[in-house]
Amino acid sequence: MEKQELINCHKRIEPYIHNTPVLSSTLINEMAGASLVFKCENFQKMGAFKMRGATNAILQLSEDKRKKGVVTHSSGNFAQALSLAAKSVGVKAYIVMPSSAPQVKIDAVKGYGGEVLICEPTLQAREAAANDIEQGKGATFIHPSNDMDVILGQGTAAMELLETNPDLDFIFVPVGGGGLVAGTILAAKYFGNNCKVIGGEPFEVDDAYRSLLSGRIESNSTTNTIADGLKTQLGDQNFPIIQEGIERIIRVTEQEIIDAMQLIWERLKIVCEASCAVPLASLLKEKELFKDKKVGIIISGGNVDLSKLPFGRY
Amino acid sequence: MEKQELINCHKRIEPYIHNTPVLSSTLINEMAGASLVFKCENFQKMGAFKMRGATNAILQLSEDKRKKGVVTHSSGNFAQALSLAAKSVGVKAYIVMPSSAPQVKIDAVKGYGGEVLICEPTLQAREAAANDIEQGKGATFIHPSNDMDVILGQGTAAMELLETNPDLDFIFVPVGGGGLVAGTILAAKYFGNNCKVIGGEPFEVDDAYRSLLSGRIESNSTTNTIADGLKTQLGDQNFPIIQEGIERIIRVTEQEIIDAMQLIWERLKIVCEASCAVPLASLLKEKELFKDKKVGIIISGGNVDLSKLPFGRY
Repeated sequence: MEKQELINCHKRIEPYIHNTPVLSSTLINEMAGASLVFKCENFQKMGAFKMRGATNAILQLSEDKRKKGVVTHSSGNFAQALSLAAKSVGVKAYIVMPSSAPQVKIDAVKGYGGEVLICEPTLQAREAAANDIEQGKGATFIHPSNDMDVILGQGTAAMELLETNPDLDFIFVPVGGGGLVAGTILAAKYFGNNCKVIGGEPFEVDDAYRSLLSGRIESNSTTNTIADGLKTQLGDQNFPIIQEGIERIIRVTEQEIIDAMQLIWERLKIVCEASCAVPLASLLKEKELFKDKKVGIIISGGNVDLSKLPFGRY
Repeated sequence: MEKQELINCHKRIEPYIHNTPVLSSTLINEMAGASLVFKCENFQKMGAFKMRGATNAILQLSEDKRKKGVVTHSSGNFAQALSLAAKSVGVKAYIVMPSSAPQVKIDAVKGYGGEVLICEPTLQAREAAANDIEQGKGATFIHPSNDMDVILGQGTAAMELLETNPDLDFIFVPVGGGGLVAGTILAAKYFGNNCKVIGGEPFEVDDAYRSLLSGRIESNSTTNTIADGLKTQLGDQNFPIIQEGIERIIRVTEQEIIDAMQLIWERLKIVCEASCAVPLASLLKEKELFKDKKVGIIISGGNVDLSKLPFGRY
């Protein structure tokens, strides 16, 4: 049933998203001792895979709900994704953003047509502001990662990758809020040929790694990582899927992330976020385990601040 | 005849090069008021279009000449291109590089299998060293831009672009040594539908602009530009083609180049050299002239030093 849901989801969102290109590099393959392909969601509309899940969640709403709009709280890519997805479908989007969000991100959300509501930079204030919109406007709340329609949407990236590369032994993804990894696990299960999913996570925000060990959703008390898309924690919708389906999570240091990011920029010639480099860093760290294997890596997004790059500073 | 030569050239080099992807950006189109497509030679093997011309020049050599190898002097992309092209075909490449060349570039040439000969950083010393190899080893000298086989090879980028986008009104290219612009002029003439070629050049190294005015090949007395691929001057093989076929050359400031480069990185999510941003900067500068037109832009290469980026410094 989940298989058919994934197929339906992909058909549903196809007119609104890009089937992104797959790149590879001889030199990276030599370094890894494996055959790697990179699914480039940095080329996705608005620059990240989040466009997939946001679009699916909106398209699944009834006509009645669509008229009242959608709401989320996010300072990251999901804010932009929900704004653009809503605009594409002709739905109003309310985006609650913390007052600490950079002006460039607020402008990006507005540029995609979202109505921005600024609140205090605490989770309580964000949830309260979103709740106000739900109550006041009748808008539907859409969670960035802990929502089954969002999870299915994110899974379509791996579906497309397995269409062009059906014999992958592994797919590596970054682990943040859990939407991408859960969707990828479902796609690998139904469309892969014994394809296993590996998560990459920074040591600095290893909540998912610890959640798998303890069997309950853990949080991060500090979030000192360059991979700013991976600071969030798992949710009750995606955690059971991850628990059941993930092969393992590999943790990496900040320097390993920066080195892998530089490798992607220099060799694949693409602009990607630090979060996207975490899977490659994980693979290189444990490369003996993946020798001669066929590996897919999802490059999750490309929205970076070019004035704040980590290269050449160490 | 030139048409058939281009067709033969493309067939000849096809097994050794990538047919690179074409990207576009809604936001850049809105800014330009035109419909732009970018031919991404930064994804070409070794990271630049120079791979095309180098491969064609080597494949045109007789068996006898191939056995004795090829030689060039270059501190830029052509050094790497000739090394990799020679390696692909099984030919020895001698690369004369100035002692001022960064170690990373010397290492890259060696990595592609070229034999590096270091000389004093003057044009005379470079020519003398290359001449020694020609005399001593019987190697064939291949000029980076002023060689008809190289020019035809570079033209295949525009040929491929016109295959996927046959109705382009204009193709914009950067003007450096003249190989790419001359090849593009030939490709547009034979495969375009009244497609005109526009050159982009930094004010700081506007030798080609001045050459068109004076009717003879002009030099640059200073070369203070971030577009380090465009410091060289035209040659007697490509200048007549450029004189006859170019629509015009548009000159841009250093800041205009940096702004266009940032736009490409942020919106197309690709890593490209400053030289590649010169055509987009030129178009944006004179955008009234290209309103609603279909425009192709050749992104010439992606070999950058990530520790020396110009963003966020102004």
